[in-house]
Amino acid sequence: MKVIYLDNNATTPVAPEVFQSMVPFFTEDYFNASSMYEPAQHTARAIAAARKSIASGLGSADPSEILFTSCATESNNTAILGTARGNPNRRHIITTTVEHPAVLEVCKELERGGYRVTYLNVDRSGNFDLGDFIRALSEDTLLVTIMHANNETGVIFPIEQLSRITKETDPAIVFHTDATQTVGKLPVDLTRNLVHVDLLSFSGHKLHAPKGVGALFIRRGSRCRPFMIGGHQESGRRGGTENVAFIVGLAKALQLALASREPDDARIARLRDRLETALLAAIPYSQVNGKGADRLPNTLNLSIHYIEGEGILYQLSEHGICASSGSACTSGSLEPSHVLRAMHVPFTAVHGSVRFSLGRYNTAEEIEKVIEVFPQIVVNLRKLSPYWDNERNTPRPDAPRLDE
Amino acid sequence: MKVIYLDNNATTPVAPEVFQSMVPFFTEDYFNASSMYEPAQHTARAIAAARKSIASGLGSADPSEILFTSCATESNNTAILGTARGNPNRRHIITTTVEHPAVLEVCKELERGGYRVTYLNVDRSGNFDLGDFIRALSEDTLLVTIMHANNETGVIFPIEQLSRITKETDPAIVFHTDATQTVGKLPVDLTRNLVHVDLLSFSGHKLHAPKGVGALFIRRGSRCRPFMIGGHQESGRRGGTENVAFIVGLAKALQLALASREPDDARIARLRDRLETALLAAIPYSQVNGKGADRLPNTLNLSIHYIEGEGILYQLSEHGICASSGSACTSGSLEPSHVLRAMHVPFTAVHGSVRFSLGRYNTAEEIEKVIEVFPQIVVNLRKLSPYWDNERNTPRPDAPRLDE
Repeated sequence: MKVIYLDNNATTPVAPEVFQSMVPFFTEDYFNASSMYEPAQHTARAIAAARKSIASGLGSADPSEILFTSCATESNNTAILGTARGNPNRRHIITTTVEHPAVLEVCKELERGGYRVTYLNVDRSGNFDLGDFIRALSEDTLLVTIMHANNETGVIFPIEQLSRITKETDPAIVFHTDATQTVGKLPVDLTRNLVHVDLLSFSGHKLHAPKGVGALFIRRGSRCRPFMIGGHQESGRRGGTENVAFIVGLAKALQLALASREPDDARIARLRDRLETALLAAIPYSQVNGKGADRLPNTLNLSIHYIEGEGILYQLSEHGICASSGSACTSGSLEPSHVLRAMHVPFTAVHGSVRFSLGRYNTAEEIEKVIEVFPQIVVNLRKLSPYWDNERNTPRPDAPRLDE
Repeated sequence: MKVIYLDNNATTPVAPEVFQSMVPFFTEDYFNASSMYEPAQHTARAIAAARKSIASGLGSADPSEILFTSCATESNNTAILGTARGNPNRRHIITTTVEHPAVLEVCKELERGGYRVTYLNVDRSGNFDLGDFIRALSEDTLLVTIMHANNETGVIFPIEQLSRITKETDPAIVFHTDATQTVGKLPVDLTRNLVHVDLLSFSGHKLHAPKGVGALFIRRGSRCRPFMIGGHQESGRRGGTENVAFIVGLAKALQLALASREPDDARIARLRDRLETALLAAIPYSQVNGKGADRLPNTLNLSIHYIEGEGILYQLSEHGICASSGSACTSGSLEPSHVLRAMHVPFTAVHGSVRFSLGRYNTAEEIEKVIEVFPQIVVNLRKLSPYWDNERNTPRPDAPRLDE
């Protein structure tokens, strides 16, 4: 059965061009980039070229601002823990309740170590109150860490504005953003729109590079101490032999994504909008999470009242359709999504949520197939729901109300 | 020019079989192993099979004792910092002066945080005194972290004995060994010879898997808290999307290494012994570092008095021969090797050190080529030495004495 892959916020296939760029670095140019002989210098130059290309792609003229890591989780750990270690005089952190666990759990760890953490609450659209944010900034604030766009809903936070306000309030506060879902999808230019961002995390596998490589932009002058402690690699900022193949692949993937970002985004947004409009029309008692907010062009998070998300996913899977109920990084848990709970999605719907996240390789035919099969899946599942009146195709009179 | 690669302790080429095992997981089976749909379950099963294979290869019947990481540096950081966090009541660590920076620098970081660290000194053969070790064990000892074999000299520490003594003294002391240089080369069986080892680190790229993957054996019951904080992956022990391709490659590489370990070791030892004997005979005032100790079968660390190691490496490189002056992980520094300094290699020789580390793909012809060119390189470099009498082929009378 042909797979229809609509889970690009979880991971993406490696682009064929990226794969080809990596192949020589496995069995031929396999040398340790730290070694002195000429063949190793060739691999060291490949890393330098990748670093320069990525810096340039993000608007930085200084390749030394790019630190290579093994994933966005490592980038986030490095940004937050490294900033805490580098600036021990301040002990307050501002973040949001809807961050990825790689930020949220690190903040909780620091909280257990005596730090004070402000978790900004979001409203039903997924946004937080700007006044709350401004009031949270204090003399003791070490770090603001707020994601660029949410992985589950695609809701975009106004990082340009938040980072500017932060620096206007106190230039010593470090501003970090987890841009794992936006690099290659939204404009990310660290000398233009994101000029007040000090640290920016992203990973390869959300943009058609492989799983197992990420990067952290560290603006020159930022005090961010190493997280992975060891040898002198990455100018002493991260121990561990460089993963040359994946670093080269990451640069290639970013280059590809940026080369066609605007047309890709436009085409993907049209497909997403078509999917969203058609499903909302076909499925009564459904809602788009983050509807009122700026959202990524590729993400549709839909809650279907009175059914279970897991049932939806299994039935979609039987049609070859890959979607998710939230983040893959939390899917081992049976808890409903912390993001949707933070957004006050009604309990009649929070379990019946499904995320479609589109990507470069999706076609209109695939979207039409989902539009064809998905409403019937909902009908089938609602037949099993104690709250659903199948004859009238409405909730039963004794069903919980939507806003309970 | 054909490359003669004799730097296998720095990194190794990916084996063709390993490369082939990984290929499907880039562009085809690219799914996030945490996702629920069937294709992702296929990738999750690939990880489970790799975990089982690696556990079994190390003598463990329990695959959950294997944690996948991005490199040995991460494994070492996890072992040491995770143990410290998991056992906060004890504050003393025992290690050696010749560990890899991924252990040594982590210990120093804990020392800055108030831990007491005993660094065992080694003698000229590279070994430390067992009495010193036993006397260092105390009621406050949290962790012993001692490498299985040294990356620069190949000197093997008696981990079986050290771990047994540790547990006989106090079963609550955690025993960790960095086995990056020995897995696949020496017998490593965690239910037989290394039954008292709680934590064991290794990486893929020393055994013909790619750079960017490692593992940590965590014996069931060990209190080792996560280092990489994030999602629920690796049973909650490490956040970050699994690098499926490299995990599969690591399992394949270990399987290959174990399948031919004894004949490979024997063949490589013969080549190394031939190289060692021939070079010692041809080069006056040369010495093998770690000569008196048990050593890895593949490693020859040679000090040539009265010349500079960097000159040797460049001239070898011009013949296509890849060797190193020590660890690639410290080669960005101009300092002489901390390992050789700890072994009291005379200052007339510590700068003139070269490490040849052989591997599966080396041939007798390659070794003969090194034997042919290396002595002449030494003659050429000694011509530039202010301490060398070229006519008599001995040190000048005013040269520093060897044991100064």
